[in-house]
Amino acid sequence: MIVLKLGGSVVTEKDRPETLDGRALDRAADAVADANDDLVVVHGGGSFGHHHAEERGVSTTDGTRDADDVLAVHGAMTTLNRFVVDRLRERDVPALPVHPLSVASRDDAARLTLPTDQVATMVGEGFVPVLHGDGIAHAGEGVTVLSGDEVVTRVASSLDADRVGVCSTVPGVLDADGDVIPRIDSFDEVADALGGSAATDVSGGMAGKVRELLALDRPASVFDLDGLPGFLSGERPGTTIDGSSD
Amino acid sequence: MIVLKLGGSVVTEKDRPETLDGRALDRAADAVADANDDLVVVHGGGSFGHHHAEERGVSTTDGTRDADDVLAVHGAMTTLNRFVVDRLRERDVPALPVHPLSVASRDDAARLTLPTDQVATMVGEGFVPVLHGDGIAHAGEGVTVLSGDEVVTRVASSLDADRVGVCSTVPGVLDADGDVIPRIDSFDEVADALGGSAATDVSGGMAGKVRELLALDRPASVFDLDGLPGFLSGERPGTTIDGSSD
Repeated sequence: MIVLKLGGSVVTEKDRPETLDGRALDRAADAVADANDDLVVVHGGGSFGHHHAEERGVSTTDGTRDADDVLAVHGAMTTLNRFVVDRLRERDVPALPVHPLSVASRDDAARLTLPTDQVATMVGEGFVPVLHGDGIAHAGEGVTVLSGDEVVTRVASSLDADRVGVCSTVPGVLDADGDVIPRIDSFDEVADALGGSAATDVSGGMAGKVRELLALDRPASVFDLDGLPGFLSGERPGTTIDGSSD
Repeated sequence: MIVLKLGGSVVTEKDRPETLDGRALDRAADAVADANDDLVVVHGGGSFGHHHAEERGVSTTDGTRDADDVLAVHGAMTTLNRFVVDRLRERDVPALPVHPLSVASRDDAARLTLPTDQVATMVGEGFVPVLHGDGIAHAGEGVTVLSGDEVVTRVASSLDADRVGVCSTVPGVLDADGDVIPRIDSFDEVADALGGSAATDVSGGMAGKVRELLALDRPASVFDLDGLPGFLSGERPGTTIDGSSD
């Protein structure tokens, strides 16, 4: 089984609120349609979720108890999710939506509960579940943000995924000279090279992605759309991030 | 905590595909807005879910592996769910959607898994989760139907609800003469009086509701819109169904 993250900045125009990058999403959907393995897709928020979350002051740690705030973030994310599912369905991928607000929660120590029996059952029955970054009920905080990256790492661990791929706008994790770092085993190695991402990203940009993927107990790959078909056919394009060897 | 079921036949025009009964839904939303207790709302499918499920041959036991079938049923149910959440939001009820397709599954012995930490956390943070009948991933069957009644009984048990109410189109469970049966402790008592419901209902009509509610380990009330305000203020209108005394 493969868990594939489609970065929010890949499938949306990240600097323009609620604007899809339809051409990029088509390329991603084409690659997914050609894949032969069992697959779980997770997409980020891009200009859909992040815009509303920032506007309303909601982050992974700071919550809201205003249902309008929650519905703004969640509504934008389910709209984007429908686009992703629809483009996959156009290519006969048996995609089904799975909304984290409906299933996940955090306790008052911010510990994540994300049951995955439904995802495993969908995959076992031949479907391709499509999850996403979302709002999440959080004890003591109301509703906070659950990043797509956190969904990826939790689902990959729970379902014991064979391979994890993160499709980004860049061909891998880049060093200070703009070159792809082929392999990362610990955050210290790359802390200097990783600034925040240029556009709004409440869930931490590339630095956040690297930290999440290092916490996985299996290797993950970070690559761009050019690398996606290769990744789905078994290659290791871009940067391999492997915290288990640390 | 109260778990309240709004029958699909109450909030929709059950004989006309995908037609809301807006006036009935407004009455229900008014009553919910006046409630003081912690509340979980569950609505049925009415003319939204049942129509598509029957057309595509999907029931609680017979599944589909066609994603279009699943998305037709789920899409209709999420549309109805948006109507319910919106009408509650118009009255400042802090309603949030919870879609069972995203969280529930059945194994190959049809045993239901329906995690409820997210529902409990939402309620604890002051929100009113709104669940519904839906499609559900089902090992060996693809996707089958999860009835709103099954959601009600499972959520009420898992969260140890104090009171369970089922708001129907009739003022209670009716005997052969059309009179409300005040109390039901076992199915045998009422088997003769309960036929199928007149309109399409893939999840079993009133007989199914009574069976599900008898399986609860706490008393439940069945009543109509006239009884709803009283139920939410602590009365026991209509029929009390209590399998725990059997």
